[in-house]
Amino acid sequence: MFESKETIQQAQKDWEQLTLWPSLERAPERDQSFMTTSSAPINRLYTPLDLQDSDYLRDIAHPGEYPYTRGVHPTGYRGKVWTMRMFAGFGTAEETNARFKYLLSQGQTGLSIAFDMPTLYGRDTDHPLVEGEFGKCGVAITSLADMEILLDGLPLDVVSTSMTINSPAAIIWAMYLAVAEKRGIPWAKLRGTLQNDILKEYIAQNEYIFPPEPSMSLVVDTMEFGSQHVPQWNTISISGYHIREAGSTAAQELAFTLADGIAYVEAALERGLDIDDFAPRLSFFFNAHNDFFEEIAKYRAARRIWARLMRERFGAKNERSWWLRFHSQTAGCSLTAQQPEMNIIRTTIQALAAVLGGAQSLHTNSMDEALALPSEKAATIALRTQQIIAAESGVTNTVDPLGGSYFVEALTDRMEREANEYFRRIEEQGGVIAAIRNGFFQQEIADAAYQYQREIDTKERLMVGINAYTVEAPLEIPILAMDPEGERKHLERLNQVRRERDNALVQQRLEALRTASEAGKNLMPALLDCVRAYVTMGEICDVLREVFGVYQDTTIAV
Amino acid sequence: MFESKETIQQAQKDWEQLTLWPSLERAPERDQSFMTTSSAPINRLYTPLDLQDSDYLRDIAHPGEYPYTRGVHPTGYRGKVWTMRMFAGFGTAEETNARFKYLLSQGQTGLSIAFDMPTLYGRDTDHPLVEGEFGKCGVAITSLADMEILLDGLPLDVVSTSMTINSPAAIIWAMYLAVAEKRGIPWAKLRGTLQNDILKEYIAQNEYIFPPEPSMSLVVDTMEFGSQHVPQWNTISISGYHIREAGSTAAQELAFTLADGIAYVEAALERGLDIDDFAPRLSFFFNAHNDFFEEIAKYRAARRIWARLMRERFGAKNERSWWLRFHSQTAGCSLTAQQPEMNIIRTTIQALAAVLGGAQSLHTNSMDEALALPSEKAATIALRTQQIIAAESGVTNTVDPLGGSYFVEALTDRMEREANEYFRRIEEQGGVIAAIRNGFFQQEIADAAYQYQREIDTKERLMVGINAYTVEAPLEIPILAMDPEGERKHLERLNQVRRERDNALVQQRLEALRTASEAGKNLMPALLDCVRAYVTMGEICDVLREVFGVYQDTTIAV
Repeated sequence: MFESKETIQQAQKDWEQLTLWPSLERAPERDQSFMTTSSAPINRLYTPLDLQDSDYLRDIAHPGEYPYTRGVHPTGYRGKVWTMRMFAGFGTAEETNARFKYLLSQGQTGLSIAFDMPTLYGRDTDHPLVEGEFGKCGVAITSLADMEILLDGLPLDVVSTSMTINSPAAIIWAMYLAVAEKRGIPWAKLRGTLQNDILKEYIAQNEYIFPPEPSMSLVVDTMEFGSQHVPQWNTISISGYHIREAGSTAAQELAFTLADGIAYVEAALERGLDIDDFAPRLSFFFNAHNDFFEEIAKYRAARRIWARLMRERFGAKNERSWWLRFHSQTAGCSLTAQQPEMNIIRTTIQALAAVLGGAQSLHTNSMDEALALPSEKAATIALRTQQIIAAESGVTNTVDPLGGSYFVEALTDRMEREANEYFRRIEEQGGVIAAIRNGFFQQEIADAAYQYQREIDTKERLMVGINAYTVEAPLEIPILAMDPEGERKHLERLNQVRRERDNALVQQRLEALRTASEAGKNLMPALLDCVRAYVTMGEICDVLREVFGVYQDTTIAV
Repeated sequence: MFESKETIQQAQKDWEQLTLWPSLERAPERDQSFMTTSSAPINRLYTPLDLQDSDYLRDIAHPGEYPYTRGVHPTGYRGKVWTMRMFAGFGTAEETNARFKYLLSQGQTGLSIAFDMPTLYGRDTDHPLVEGEFGKCGVAITSLADMEILLDGLPLDVVSTSMTINSPAAIIWAMYLAVAEKRGIPWAKLRGTLQNDILKEYIAQNEYIFPPEPSMSLVVDTMEFGSQHVPQWNTISISGYHIREAGSTAAQELAFTLADGIAYVEAALERGLDIDDFAPRLSFFFNAHNDFFEEIAKYRAARRIWARLMRERFGAKNERSWWLRFHSQTAGCSLTAQQPEMNIIRTTIQALAAVLGGAQSLHTNSMDEALALPSEKAATIALRTQQIIAAESGVTNTVDPLGGSYFVEALTDRMEREANEYFRRIEEQGGVIAAIRNGFFQQEIADAAYQYQREIDTKERLMVGINAYTVEAPLEIPILAMDPEGERKHLERLNQVRRERDNALVQQRLEALRTASEAGKNLMPALLDCVRAYVTMGEICDVLREVFGVYQDTTIAV
């Protein structure tokens, strides 16, 4: 390991001439060049020479030590394995509550709530614009009454809860806090994560309501409120997942997500918050896509880049401000409707990459997710994937087992360079919001998605069941059946809430919210007062729509 | 990468005092110690210091370069991916032939034949000692007539065929060669592998007929005949798979298998063969068990140890004699009857380890193998596992992606040391056959199996579906249905063969076989003459049983 660079350089030259070239002459490689899932070129071989500009102590270092390439904890998964957190939600609060209890009984260790379209867009279920969307892609939460049922019997003081909600994130969080309050659980004991990442909605996912500036202000409200009142809560989960699902490369996912992170930090600093008060509660959310080593390198690079940014650019002093902690979800876009059991295979490889990359929390997709919402059986198998990796594969026995691999370290270095180059281009445009308005991210992602699709169409890239080994087999897996009466029951409850609540108080609280939002105050107290009075999601958002306006996307050429 | 050892040593000490110990005081690890699937201890962290006695050029080196730690080919899977070879066989020759054709249509790239119990023990199907065993664990091959049907329509000049047979291996090979001869395919074009590893039968699997010495002689007959007449055939596949399935550790699997390899080499040298004539056709067969990195290290160590043995101890000159090439099969013993879809997850992790360890050929178990012979659907999913790893995971893009990992390299070094220690202990006893007669291997394996079982019983080791996350779920996967008339049809064909063949010629050929075996001649020519005359498996083996005797195991205390 401590040979001289010159000795290895000479040996590598000899190898090329005496071993490699004669072999290539006898039998060429399968392709002219090889590339990752992100169409990035990969060298034939990586050796110590690929790490000659890298320094163990500066760039890799021990786990729990700046810049955290090998992980933020010195004991890795020997201390604690990742949180097994299955994203779930469909139909009524009752059905989703039952699924959560089932998943906990099967060994899940964290909750993760999917909300339906009306909730995500801040509408009551019976609003004409969201007709037919009840409970399709998540659970319907229209008022505190639904949230009470959703969380009924769940140990909120013990389990951590992730909530995938963005534009109305502050409102949903207020409902969660209000339920805890009613059950006498101190907010200081609550643990969980609010996705609350509006920037990636403009960039990739398109589920936004308000324009960027007031949206950012709402995000900072939660950051500020959280650091004061809910200290164990991650008030934002800065998300690359949807950027990747929209077709970006791994490097784009990494760079755009961290660029969003920079934007949130800058917005909070502008509000006057102290970096070390809020930065420890920033969390991240990345995709776990097909390319095993590219994904692992992405996670390792993410930790290193973020640590350097926080310490060197933003001057954070608290070590926890330097830590990048992340949730990972296996790639939904990689799944096929054909031969759904193949998705168990894909998800296993992807989950293993997330674990070897040091994820703090993981969702594994169910094999039926290209067909329907996960059935109980499919969700159980997906959870078993995590349990088998944790209990049987042995990869949790040592910290960062891949550290030192010439290939993994070189790929990590390259990812960092690519991200820094994207940061430069974004800053040239005046930052993230300016780049969103320019359509920069959207165009970069569209270009990458186009190239990927072209590679599949030309069979330059093979996808089993898509353009290789396709079969015509009947579907043999059970599909989730939802309560056919669910929407009716949900609307009955909503109408009962509207009838029975104190409607004068509702008007008063909505007016207070309007006043606070017009005055540019932190809205969390007003939102909490609204949800305590059973003001509905749609009523709250309508006030904010009136004050903030609504956002229309700039269009891009694809 | 080129920092001094002293700098890293000092930094590691600082890390322990300033980062690790304070962290352990706040939160201890989950266990006092962590161990591999083989109960071997694993350190918390591996760093460049764990490789301080290792030398890149001497111990790791470039792929295709001695000692081949990074693989025997300089281009790895960029040149050619592994052969996807699904072990299959059940019932009649007709049914197994149909399964082979199906698997080839689904993208399988090599054949692998499982034989039934009567065939493995050298008995005709209607012999009273094997009653009820027809077709249960493989295909029944009693005479050349069955082999003709088994291979009907299969492209023997293109595809490579592996045959899992040991005591009667030379007879089955003779049948294969006779079919090729009848179809006008030159033996020089045939490619494949005969398992033909009798030593591991005495050590672990117990499917032997004759005593060790004449059995070894039969093995050397095939090695000699192959090097002269069937140059592309691997006449032996020295197998650790069954040693591991019997409960050994990874280090035992590695050491005992390579020790068997040494014994075959010595037997062939004693016959007067030149090492570089036969050694390039020796092949190996290893298990791919649960522990991801332990398995990868095992394969890498195997290549390095074998290269050093062949070059340094046996003085082989041909580089191909130094190469250890291996087939891998995922661990059957790791599968559960409970929640069979979980076996897809296990098999995926195990297969990925085999690929990252550089397997030349791979069988992936079907999810139903703990319940029955693989159904067509289950076998297809298992094959898809390999196809997805090859096409989608990206791990074939660069050679030996794990090279340089502090953990993987340190584990590889440790495996080599452990194997060398076992070699020493075996040689002390006078070699492999003496150690078999001493019950040495059997006792070592029994001890390891006992410890593993105790760890499961005490829940020190968790196995999902065995002692963790067990559920009572109905079985929802289809189970293979075999032809209920299969045995009757097979016996009809056998009786027709016995009636219609030239029975005077049969007697004459059996006498010639007896004479040759009594004279200690290479038996391949006489066996070929027998099978060409449709002498049956049982008739041939009866003659050999009379000449060689049969073997009784020494018993061991467990």
